[in-house]
Amino acid sequence: MTEESARGPLLLLRARVHAALEGKGRTGRVVEGAVLALILLNVVAIVLDSVDSLDRRFGGVFDAIELASVIVFAAEYFLRLWACTADPAYRRPVAGRLRFAARPLAIVDLLSFVPYFLVFWDVDLRVFRAVRLVRFFSVAKLGRNVRAIAMLGSAVRAKRDELLATFTLAILALVISSTLMYFAENGAQPEKFADVPHALWWAIETLTTVGYGDVVPVTTLGKVLAAILAICGIAMFALPTLILGTAFVEEYDRRRKRRHVTCPDCGKEFEEPRGT
Amino acid sequence: MTEESARGPLLLLRARVHAALEGKGRTGRVVEGAVLALILLNVVAIVLDSVDSLDRRFGGVFDAIELASVIVFAAEYFLRLWACTADPAYRRPVAGRLRFAARPLAIVDLLSFVPYFLVFWDVDLRVFRAVRLVRFFSVAKLGRNVRAIAMLGSAVRAKRDELLATFTLAILALVISSTLMYFAENGAQPEKFADVPHALWWAIETLTTVGYGDVVPVTTLGKVLAAILAICGIAMFALPTLILGTAFVEEYDRRRKRRHVTCPDCGKEFEEPRGT
Amino acid sequence: MTEESARGPLLLLRARVHAALEGKGRTGRVVEGAVLALILLNVVAIVLDSVDSLDRRFGGVFDAIELASVIVFAAEYFLRLWACTADPAYRRPVAGRLRFAARPLAIVDLLSFVPYFLVFWDVDLRVFRAVRLVRFFSVAKLGRNVRAIAMLGSAVRAKRDELLATFTLAILALVISSTLMYFAENGAQPEKFADVPHALWWAIETLTTVGYGDVVPVTTLGKVLAAILAICGIAMFALPTLILGTAFVEEYDRRRKRRHVTCPDCGKEFEEPRGT
Amino acid sequence: MTEESARGPLLLLRARVHAALEGKGRTGRVVEGAVLALILLNVVAIVLDSVDSLDRRFGGVFDAIELASVIVFAAEYFLRLWACTADPAYRRPVAGRLRFAARPLAIVDLLSFVPYFLVFWDVDLRVFRAVRLVRFFSVAKLGRNVRAIAMLGSAVRAKRDELLATFTLAILALVISSTLMYFAENGAQPEKFADVPHALWWAIETLTTVGYGDVVPVTTLGKVLAAILAICGIAMFALPTLILGTAFVEEYDRRRKRRHVTCPDCGKEFEEPRGT
Repeated sequence: MTEESARGPLLLLRARVHAALEGKGRTGRVVEGAVLALILLNVVAIVLDSVDSLDRRFGGVFDAIELASVIVFAAEYFLRLWACTADPAYRRPVAGRLRFAARPLAIVDLLSFVPYFLVFWDVDLRVFRAVRLVRFFSVAKLGRNVRAIAMLGSAVRAKRDELLATFTLAILALVISSTLMYFAENGAQPEKFADVPHALWWAIETLTTVGYGDVVPVTTLGKVLAAILAICGIAMFALPTLILGTAFVEEYDRRRKRRHVTCPDCGKEFEEPRGT
Repeated sequence: MTEESARGPLLLLRARVHAALEGKGRTGRVVEGAVLALILLNVVAIVLDSVDSLDRRFGGVFDAIELASVIVFAAEYFLRLWACTADPAYRRPVAGRLRFAARPLAIVDLLSFVPYFLVFWDVDLRVFRAVRLVRFFSVAKLGRNVRAIAMLGSAVRAKRDELLATFTLAILALVISSTLMYFAENGAQPEKFADVPHALWWAIETLTTVGYGDVVPVTTLGKVLAAILAICGIAMFALPTLILGTAFVEEYDRRRKRRHVTCPDCGKEFEEPRGT
Repeated sequence: MTEESARGPLLLLRARVHAALEGKGRTGRVVEGAVLALILLNVVAIVLDSVDSLDRRFGGVFDAIELASVIVFAAEYFLRLWACTADPAYRRPVAGRLRFAARPLAIVDLLSFVPYFLVFWDVDLRVFRAVRLVRFFSVAKLGRNVRAIAMLGSAVRAKRDELLATFTLAILALVISSTLMYFAENGAQPEKFADVPHALWWAIETLTTVGYGDVVPVTTLGKVLAAILAICGIAMFALPTLILGTAFVEEYDRRRKRRHVTCPDCGKEFEEPRGT
Repeated sequence: MTEESARGPLLLLRARVHAALEGKGRTGRVVEGAVLALILLNVVAIVLDSVDSLDRRFGGVFDAIELASVIVFAAEYFLRLWACTADPAYRRPVAGRLRFAARPLAIVDLLSFVPYFLVFWDVDLRVFRAVRLVRFFSVAKLGRNVRAIAMLGSAVRAKRDELLATFTLAILALVISSTLMYFAENGAQPEKFADVPHALWWAIETLTTVGYGDVVPVTTLGKVLAAILAICGIAMFALPTLILGTAFVEEYDRRRKRRHVTCPDCGKEFEEPRGT
């Protein structure tokens, strides 16, 4: 700290901005909360803006929310890019910042405001839709801020092989089910089981146990097959979820044991000390 | 005990009433059982009273059950309020009782009989409905008495962070699914996917795997999207349930180890000795 | 063994019949397998007899299977009753046999053949239906023979409190959901949500995630309520199943550790040595 | 290795081919990847070939993929058969190879190309369908190569008794549910609940919670029964899945501990060193 402050007030500011944007310290928590609130406001705006009667009345409000969000997201992005060199991993001014900008999360951040500005160059009806999708990327930004997604990521990585294995089994169950059902039901229902992709839709809604009922086997062979495939296939589809659930609980138990303290001098933390 | 009885028979009575209303000792178990039976009678009455043919025949019986319940619930509430000062946490006559009455469970108790008496002041058709809702609050009182709810509360608190994290993921899955499906299906089914809230209804019935079948994607893009969103989203929706189940089993194991005895003198218990 | 054989060949025979009927020793396994095969034959007969075209053709075969089963089940019952005094728990000739006959499993055994003979006394059309139900009781006998049901019984007993607690929560979720949905949807769909019992049918098919789609909320309030109730209620309904699953796995692990040997002299076993 | 190479270059080649086909060493991984890619291409071809519009346009491409696959699968099969004697378990030239060819996986391999060549002998319309099914067997070949299936097999074997027990319970729940519902609903819906097999279809779609809604109870008795059977039966159906999930996680944990190294000389591995 003393060494850093000696290297000029700009470096100190940069370190503080970096810590704040990473959600560290009191300022960090305020910034994090504010960005989270803005994203949630965006989610509500996406949902309500699509309702015609509300769009006619409060369209201006939704536009204002969008503009404000885009400005804040852009400011946050460039501040983050400027301050990232405070992190030893991205220390070099150009190469470090480029590597920082190339991370998937940074690209999500970029996409959360860039499409909005593209409109001013080439306006047509299709682009208006794209503008609306900007808001969708702000929802994706939610993942950047909420610890839950990091958690999910760790859980998925910890059980990568098990998930891949069970996912393969699920895909296999899907393909076998849809192929067999296509042969069994194509004759009786040439429209609903027109081809294997149509049968795949049946297989997905059955093996996930959603069961809308828009595609249902009618022949005896089809029903017998469907019964056997459902009983086996549903188990295959439930396996990844069960494994993910186990991984999630284990991941939390693991993190709870690894609690470390924040350094009161430099504002860096070595392990998550809050929340978990 | 000897000290307490020396401070007057009223104090002794208050302590005994308090213990009985908290379900402690033999009298307490009888009182608890009686209140539980009355609540279950109310539940049956709510369910059967709504059937027109039964209401015409046994309407008087249902009214009598209601009146009896309201009187018992009111008596229980005021006795509880009078006796609560026996608890060291609410020792002060006025401030203690106010704090006691402000707890959520005390408010549920209050709401289980107050609306009934409001009818006598201002009668109109709408209020008749409210009178019926009285009974609904008696069902909520069930939570006050049955240990299962306390168990659920502990389990939720123990895994608060995990549940919050997975719930965030579930909400994120809901919002992303409904937004994408709105764009995919709005053109083909302008009524069923009229706006994002309409698509949210589809997303909820799909990701919970209920699948009524009243809203189903019909376009190829919609079906492909629905398949991917269903496979990922259902896992997100199952996570909170899996975590709650783990927490529930752990909570029971934990309680089983902590069994303590009831003090035979004052009737107080330091840990749950029955049932668990 | 030597002591027992000294007390007469009848006692020895009784002990051997007892052991055989309890599925112990080589003879026991053969008897168990034969009874199981007969029950499975009955299950197939129940399922196929209901198909009119098969009943017309093979009706005689089904009747023969029924008669044979009833004779075997009756013989097994009376042999079991005669031999039960070989078990120290039912040693006394009259009182022991009465206690043996009063156990739930013995009553199931009795019901698996008695209704058939009742037909000869008072024949009318309604009784013919009852005759068919005889076969249903033979299915229930399956539980007597297959270890899985004993396993399930142990698992349920081990987690009795947890299951009771979560079941209470599930019932509470059912009642609250159906009451609220009745108030929300009764106006818009007076037939489908005619009263709370009708709404209960909706609640059951939703909270179990079956979702036939015959009763679906149509109002905005109903859909919002249904969404919230579904998300919370489905978790409540999944809890008992998760707890039962945990108990089942634990029960098996516990039994696997407790393996004991069969006494080669008297044919008695102190713990399950096979299968598990 | 030195000993083996002394016994002639053919033996060395055979050992290398054997190792490569078993997926060992660098060559093995390349071969495994290539076969896997070809199978996945087949899966895509099966799914897309059934779509009429695509078949008309790209029918030639699909035929080419089919021919190429059949040739590769045949070559792989005969190479495997020739090289299998490198495995000490199948050392004897004739008896060893016959035992090798009699394994279920070898039969799947054989079925993945033989039906294609049968067409040249006796061509008729029905056989064209069989030709298409060739591709289905290539999907089954997937199981030969992907480790996930071996994993599933181990998990099933480890919990064989538990799975058998819970499966018995599920079958029992199915039979009891369908028999009772047949008696309850046959009068009101003589077509949908025509016999017990028809009721079985209802029971399967209900107890798996798929719930298409094509067969739904309409009588009060039927609905009450359906509610009780659903609540109990769904738990019975979920048990095997929960147990399989537990077994899968345990199996992976067990394998992770048993990691062994590949011998750099002979290319043999004693335990799985990759992936898991």
